[in-house]
Amino acid sequence: MLTNVEHLGIAVKNIAASDELFSKLFNTSSYKHESVESEGVTTSFFIINQTKIELLEATDPDSPIAKFIEKKGEGIHHIAFEVDDIWAEMQRLKNEGFTLLNETPKRGADNKLVCFLHPKGTNGVLIELCQEKP
Amino acid sequence: MLTNVEHLGIAVKNIAASDELFSKLFNTSSYKHESVESEGVTTSFFIINQTKIELLEATDPDSPIAKFIEKKGEGIHHIAFEVDDIWAEMQRLKNEGFTLLNETPKRGADNKLVCFLHPKGTNGVLIELCQEKP
Repeated sequence: MLTNVEHLGIAVKNIAASDELFSKLFNTSSYKHESVESEGVTTSFFIINQTKIELLEATDPDSPIAKFIEKKGEGIHHIAFEVDDIWAEMQRLKNEGFTLLNETPKRGADNKLVCFLHPKGTNGVLIELCQEKP
Repeated sequence: MLTNVEHLGIAVKNIAASDELFSKLFNTSSYKHESVESEGVTTSFFIINQTKIELLEATDPDSPIAKFIEKKGEGIHHIAFEVDDIWAEMQRLKNEGFTLLNETPKRGADNKLVCFLHPKGTNGVLIELCQEKP
């Protein structure tokens, strides 16, 4: 079951500059920075009520974030929904005809197990399922 | 103050087809349809916990949603933050250097007063401020 919009991912070119920008916008500071080497990104987190805003800067020119910015420019990259059982939800969505970008959950930022759905099957929206790692 | 991610707007070509798709994805149905003639759109709402997902289909080929899809294809269109005082928040953000797309709040879907910020000043993200109409 999808239980919450856990976070929104925003692709940015320069996380230091965007930290300053989003601090002004949200009137609050980033509370955490974290790199995920396997994904070639560094991240910065803000929180508004129950939803996190994750800024993503590429640290590797071949990473998905670098390619996204090259193709589309900076902007909203993905919506992440919290799920109560990521394996069960992946199976349910597969049965419904959605295409999973990874067949087993992988490690994401913020101590999460994550799985992405192919945006071609979701009206162009990159959807992430995420669950806190046990 | 920004108090919540009130909704996410997703631009779609065919709201009936997307209703079916997102019903499968969310495992719940759209709970409301509403047209906003002044914006040239028809909308469909889902809710996950405290965040609504608003599907938007253009009803007018000159509407912002029609132009967005023409330029970028279907996908995430905007993030809407609930604010406790839209006039005060518009003034605060203007003072911080953000560009407002409308100088006075306008009527949005779902009984809201809304104001958009220019995405050129927010790393390509179209931000909506919204407040329930009194």
